[in-house]
Amino acid sequence: MTTTPKPSHQIPDRDIYERRESGVRSYARAMPRQFGRAENVWMYDNQGGRYLDFLSGCSTLNYGHNHPIMKQALLDYIAGDGITHGLDLHTDAKQDFLTTFEDVILKPRGLDYRAMFTGPTGTNAVEAAIKLARKVTGREMVIAFTNGFHGMTLGALACTGNAAKRGGAGVPLSHVSHEPYDGYYGPDVDTADLLEQRLADPSSGLDAPAAILVETVQGEGGLNAASPEWLRKIAQIAKAHGALLIVDDIQAGCGRTGGFFSFEDMGFTPDIVTLAKSLSGMGLPFALTLFSPELDQWSPGEHNGTFRGNNHAFVTATAALRHFWSDDTFQADVRRRGELVEQRFDKLATEFGFEQRGRGMMRGLNVGSGELAATITGACFDQGLIIETSGAHDEVIKVLAPLVIDDAVLIAGLDILESNIRAAMATDYAVAAE
Amino acid sequence: MTTTPKPSHQIPDRDIYERRESGVRSYARAMPRQFGRAENVWMYDNQGGRYLDFLSGCSTLNYGHNHPIMKQALLDYIAGDGITHGLDLHTDAKQDFLTTFEDVILKPRGLDYRAMFTGPTGTNAVEAAIKLARKVTGREMVIAFTNGFHGMTLGALACTGNAAKRGGAGVPLSHVSHEPYDGYYGPDVDTADLLEQRLADPSSGLDAPAAILVETVQGEGGLNAASPEWLRKIAQIAKAHGALLIVDDIQAGCGRTGGFFSFEDMGFTPDIVTLAKSLSGMGLPFALTLFSPELDQWSPGEHNGTFRGNNHAFVTATAALRHFWSDDTFQADVRRRGELVEQRFDKLATEFGFEQRGRGMMRGLNVGSGELAATITGACFDQGLIIETSGAHDEVIKVLAPLVIDDAVLIAGLDILESNIRAAMATDYAVAAE
Amino acid sequence: MTTTPKPSHQIPDRDIYERRESGVRSYARAMPRQFGRAENVWMYDNQGGRYLDFLSGCSTLNYGHNHPIMKQALLDYIAGDGITHGLDLHTDAKQDFLTTFEDVILKPRGLDYRAMFTGPTGTNAVEAAIKLARKVTGREMVIAFTNGFHGMTLGALACTGNAAKRGGAGVPLSHVSHEPYDGYYGPDVDTADLLEQRLADPSSGLDAPAAILVETVQGEGGLNAASPEWLRKIAQIAKAHGALLIVDDIQAGCGRTGGFFSFEDMGFTPDIVTLAKSLSGMGLPFALTLFSPELDQWSPGEHNGTFRGNNHAFVTATAALRHFWSDDTFQADVRRRGELVEQRFDKLATEFGFEQRGRGMMRGLNVGSGELAATITGACFDQGLIIETSGAHDEVIKVLAPLVIDDAVLIAGLDILESNIRAAMATDYAVAAE
Amino acid sequence: MTTTPKPSHQIPDRDIYERRESGVRSYARAMPRQFGRAENVWMYDNQGGRYLDFLSGCSTLNYGHNHPIMKQALLDYIAGDGITHGLDLHTDAKQDFLTTFEDVILKPRGLDYRAMFTGPTGTNAVEAAIKLARKVTGREMVIAFTNGFHGMTLGALACTGNAAKRGGAGVPLSHVSHEPYDGYYGPDVDTADLLEQRLADPSSGLDAPAAILVETVQGEGGLNAASPEWLRKIAQIAKAHGALLIVDDIQAGCGRTGGFFSFEDMGFTPDIVTLAKSLSGMGLPFALTLFSPELDQWSPGEHNGTFRGNNHAFVTATAALRHFWSDDTFQADVRRRGELVEQRFDKLATEFGFEQRGRGMMRGLNVGSGELAATITGACFDQGLIIETSGAHDEVIKVLAPLVIDDAVLIAGLDILESNIRAAMATDYAVAAE
Repeated sequence: MTTTPKPSHQIPDRDIYERRESGVRSYARAMPRQFGRAENVWMYDNQGGRYLDFLSGCSTLNYGHNHPIMKQALLDYIAGDGITHGLDLHTDAKQDFLTTFEDVILKPRGLDYRAMFTGPTGTNAVEAAIKLARKVTGREMVIAFTNGFHGMTLGALACTGNAAKRGGAGVPLSHVSHEPYDGYYGPDVDTADLLEQRLADPSSGLDAPAAILVETVQGEGGLNAASPEWLRKIAQIAKAHGALLIVDDIQAGCGRTGGFFSFEDMGFTPDIVTLAKSLSGMGLPFALTLFSPELDQWSPGEHNGTFRGNNHAFVTATAALRHFWSDDTFQADVRRRGELVEQRFDKLATEFGFEQRGRGMMRGLNVGSGELAATITGACFDQGLIIETSGAHDEVIKVLAPLVIDDAVLIAGLDILESNIRAAMATDYAVAAE
Repeated sequence: MTTTPKPSHQIPDRDIYERRESGVRSYARAMPRQFGRAENVWMYDNQGGRYLDFLSGCSTLNYGHNHPIMKQALLDYIAGDGITHGLDLHTDAKQDFLTTFEDVILKPRGLDYRAMFTGPTGTNAVEAAIKLARKVTGREMVIAFTNGFHGMTLGALACTGNAAKRGGAGVPLSHVSHEPYDGYYGPDVDTADLLEQRLADPSSGLDAPAAILVETVQGEGGLNAASPEWLRKIAQIAKAHGALLIVDDIQAGCGRTGGFFSFEDMGFTPDIVTLAKSLSGMGLPFALTLFSPELDQWSPGEHNGTFRGNNHAFVTATAALRHFWSDDTFQADVRRRGELVEQRFDKLATEFGFEQRGRGMMRGLNVGSGELAATITGACFDQGLIIETSGAHDEVIKVLAPLVIDDAVLIAGLDILESNIRAAMATDYAVAAE
Repeated sequence: MTTTPKPSHQIPDRDIYERRESGVRSYARAMPRQFGRAENVWMYDNQGGRYLDFLSGCSTLNYGHNHPIMKQALLDYIAGDGITHGLDLHTDAKQDFLTTFEDVILKPRGLDYRAMFTGPTGTNAVEAAIKLARKVTGREMVIAFTNGFHGMTLGALACTGNAAKRGGAGVPLSHVSHEPYDGYYGPDVDTADLLEQRLADPSSGLDAPAAILVETVQGEGGLNAASPEWLRKIAQIAKAHGALLIVDDIQAGCGRTGGFFSFEDMGFTPDIVTLAKSLSGMGLPFALTLFSPELDQWSPGEHNGTFRGNNHAFVTATAALRHFWSDDTFQADVRRRGELVEQRFDKLATEFGFEQRGRGMMRGLNVGSGELAATITGACFDQGLIIETSGAHDEVIKVLAPLVIDDAVLIAGLDILESNIRAAMATDYAVAAE
Repeated sequence: MTTTPKPSHQIPDRDIYERRESGVRSYARAMPRQFGRAENVWMYDNQGGRYLDFLSGCSTLNYGHNHPIMKQALLDYIAGDGITHGLDLHTDAKQDFLTTFEDVILKPRGLDYRAMFTGPTGTNAVEAAIKLARKVTGREMVIAFTNGFHGMTLGALACTGNAAKRGGAGVPLSHVSHEPYDGYYGPDVDTADLLEQRLADPSSGLDAPAAILVETVQGEGGLNAASPEWLRKIAQIAKAHGALLIVDDIQAGCGRTGGFFSFEDMGFTPDIVTLAKSLSGMGLPFALTLFSPELDQWSPGEHNGTFRGNNHAFVTATAALRHFWSDDTFQADVRRRGELVEQRFDKLATEFGFEQRGRGMMRGLNVGSGELAATITGACFDQGLIIETSGAHDEVIKVLAPLVIDDAVLIAGLDILESNIRAAMATDYAVAAE
């Protein structure tokens, strides 16, 4: 990789951010540049720097930045005065999306879901999912998991594990019980069994749940990937106890782990699935809650939102579905690339005593300390690689490269990462040896 | 107005909606067409029908559909591979927006706010507002008002008055007290005084509030416009009792009532303001929570969201701010058009014993019954006028025409409305006379 | 009244309280004596002081201290090794109580209630009442009133208006809406109408209530007595909206306002009634929740408590019911004595611009300031009259003399009160005149 | 034991219970007699039947029924017109109690607690404890345990594990997390470690707790006795995470497990302790919340209750403390008797594959099925032995005999139990063999 970004800490009128943008901003702090243009796996700052994007908008840009297919479809749509905003009215763009989603995604997988276009954010899709589960079951309590992340509005935030996020609620977060995720207590404890025992026990204090809400791979929580066996057990537990199984596939879905859904070929079918992030194919706000037709017990308008059914996103999502999901080529590419990352991470894990995590192209390397991870990703950024951390202590370096990345570029990016790991560990060892 | 839509109840593959879209859809039921294209005040269905839009995406399309200025800016941006999705990273588009917002909106009004780009939905902006108010004050309770509408995620939904919406929560909605809005108990009762009495009384059972959350005109709640006197009192009450004043300007802001903010020239400054709907200028998902700098006590990332800071929306919003808000022309137009509607509604109200409501171009005509209102708006739709109802019993016909509408077209639309009112009342009288 | 207590601020080993009793104690602060013996309307401290009791344990001692009838019944029962504690087993004492309660109280009043012996505190009776209402209706929200007091455990505390008490909860108090009591907004506003309007309005934000919980006279809240008309309206509103009417008769019942129940002859029948305080007839812990048989939907043990069904209290309560309620003599006495207080208070109210409040022998004189009230009651205590204040600001001097008090003693006590009012007002006037 | 009760299912005017007592009654169903008199370990019904009491009011009658020492003290007090009800005023009886409690209980154990006289029920003592913990720590969440029982008012009920009890709340029970008790996941899993892991993990979703609320032996939950090691760990975890340790000693305290407190000699000191049940020494309603002086941050009256400080109970409690706790005789007796039960249960457990549980004189025999347990206890009752079951499925036969029981009588009672176990197992085997 020949790119040599010319890092500049100077942002024209940087003061505008200090003056007018809330201190709640976060990524902008670790990456103090101003970006202008982006294409495929590359982002460009306004000082001539070029960056390889291993973050992909936290898996929102699975198909890379401004993919020419989606870009052209959107340009044509806008140029033709296609409906931009139509509340939940029927539009040509919506019809195209629904038809394509049915043909390309649902039918080949034998899935029978109805689509609810919620407000175009993941948290809204989760809110709709748990509202529906509570309505259908008549129960209040939702089971979520340690290290789970599901959003920042009050209902979804209650399902989120992170204490700093939860602390922002300003009110106690209720009606949710956080149970240990797969592997939480180490390899010898099957946490699904622990959950089953408490649900089966009328004196455990754990109320009968409306839903079990689970990510198959926890993106924000540290790239923890649940095993198919554990997930199947959780699905059975949900069924046995009259709870709905909600898979939050917002980060792990849309190809990130290989299949379109992260739970494909695992032997269970969720009652409800949430999608967002890469669903639009181009980074446009878009979210979807899918559920079995018999659960579609909403009254008209019982959950709504001004921007539900973003028509620009319908257009780009449809183009992405057709282009990437009409045959198996893309999925095979993703799996191959995922193995590239896995092999590299395995090697590093063995060498340095780290831990490899994740599935498909959703990978993490637990380096054991948030400080070390920050040193490494900071050095990467200085060399033009955008890469972030995750986990309870930000101790997991995560690779969420665009799925469309060329193998050679992927390897080049991993080389940068590896060299910075080596450098940091050498320093570390040096320090430790003193 | 010469347009004669050719209504057709036939939608190509209408079944796709039945098969694959959740029954939660609502507008699509009263307007069973499939729309494709839209421009300025007009929407076009796929059967050749043309419709005058008096709904404007519930005030999301204040500048009309696909305004050429914003459209061109967006086309250029996309064609140039401008960043589409960048989490909360600094981008050229964001800098432009912040600078323009400061220059065109804040400075001329002497306002000092910081901008928080929340998830791009109104409900997310409200959630952020009440989270911040609770964090800053250390209190839990929020005061909202009868007939208020603030969104559908759990925190915002608790602030919403509508029982059908609230019923969807599936859990009790807590930490909010709904107080009577201005005029709720008739013209002789000052409901601000009632609130003051209870807040001042340590035995009233009304806990000390973190915030008072108010719309200056209640869009979903029936076009109730609070008086400036009442709003000032509410602002004083908030201050006196250590609560923050949040104006939810999502529907009433961005010019709908004349000024950019609905509270301009009223003699008080909210602590927090929420904006969404028309903020992007073109119907793109975008939301903003504004607050005084001293309230900016967020930790980095304490409230976040994948689609916060929608760069396409930055581009169109910036274009709209520059085009419409750099001088007073637009505001004068809006006021004049608002008076046109008001005069027409006053006449109808007097003649038929209806009640005129609202402010600026945010107007309602309370015809006393949801059935009558539906008859009238249904007849309008058959004649190519898209117009909706509002209020606790859907008894208020609301006019939310694009603010850019030509006076002549506005009058033509009002003519259609008036003729259908007359027809419905004639039938009614006939029925009543039998 | 010849009694001249010899006030002594000396308590033998007063330190024991400082060392070992929690600072939560309250009455002991305003009345720094140690009491040993009590009889009828008199309490005796351990320094030879005698006190006339106008507090009666906040209406717990309606029949005075250690009434000889109840005392003898209890002595006999204990001497005979009558069951002291029997959980909820059938006992002779319980049978006697139930039979007597049916014969003496329910039958003559045409009431058909079932008795639930809750834990022997008022707050427990209230908790049981609201649990039952929520269970039967399937709704969560309970309507309580400004200045209402219903207890200190979490469910009852949520129904209590006082901010200082509420603040002790440590968690937000939910599922209760506090509505303005009769007269809260002055004589011109019918607060029952305000409540009706909001309950009838599907957009008011007031959820459908499980129950309306009301005191006919608010003892802790300032001796506010609701009018029969208002209470009837509230009863009708409850019925119309599917809510149960709960009268909390813990302080106002057992003869305090004249009849055994405070709502007799008012033209409505509560669905649920709570009793405690004077129910045992002698000050023993005892509480009762009464409800219509069709509401008796409890599962066995669904609400329980170790001390439910206090057998000593059964014995004394039965004796009290037989002695005082078998004919009308006692009720006539109470009414006459209540009028004595009322006339005296009316006179004082007129003379000094005070406000007379209450009903029967549950009377208050609002002197307008907590400081003035404390000056007066403090002076009374120094002269051997135990008398307390009430209300949001402790501005109401309350007379809760034992109902059995001789008219002459009652008048003597009122004389002491009046003389201290005059003294305080003279000082006040003097101060004001300076 | 020569007693031969003459069981009669006839209760004079049994109808009064059907007509007038709520169906919530429970013990009266399994023991359909009417009792009149009781003495020491014996209860007498009104048909001449005599019953040996192995239930002791669920550990309320540790000193037996109507102990002559307490009985005489109470008779003298009542005869002398001792104050019966005095709110929280200082009384001679209160002073005696506090002084005795300090001398006999606190000082010899080196404990420094303040006493709060809550409403005289266990649930009220627990409510006070968790309110105080929340107030002092400023946190909302309380950790309670599987199978824990803490009371039936809303705050305490939220801490109770039993689903049937919880279901009676009618609102979601919040602000409490139920963690697995010692041994819950079998002998190989240290549940204290599981708790520590989640509390130490900022992403576990378990909010920082105000308190950990624990019973050292779970009376209602199935006689589960926590090990001293586990309890010490829990105490350390509480301290490490800024939570207060509350030991609910309502059932296990007052000598039931040997010492006055159930946690004596275990190497930790709770921050808060609740007592009730046997505290009065005679079955009178009485409850106490003890806490370290530095936690005594109540405002006067911040938690109150009409019957707090039951003076009759002060008298009997003082007599009991002096008589039973001034030297070690009683404790030695209890330990010896506890071992008698333990040995018998061990033998039965080994023979029949049952499980022995508990500590001191708080013992259970898990017979594996609620049906079998009910058969056995029913047969015991027919032979004059009052004995009850416990546990999530009522599968644990519990022995809560009075602590003062003669060894010979205890053995005789255990003989009855054993013979009925043998009979039931013989039938069972016979049935199984068919």
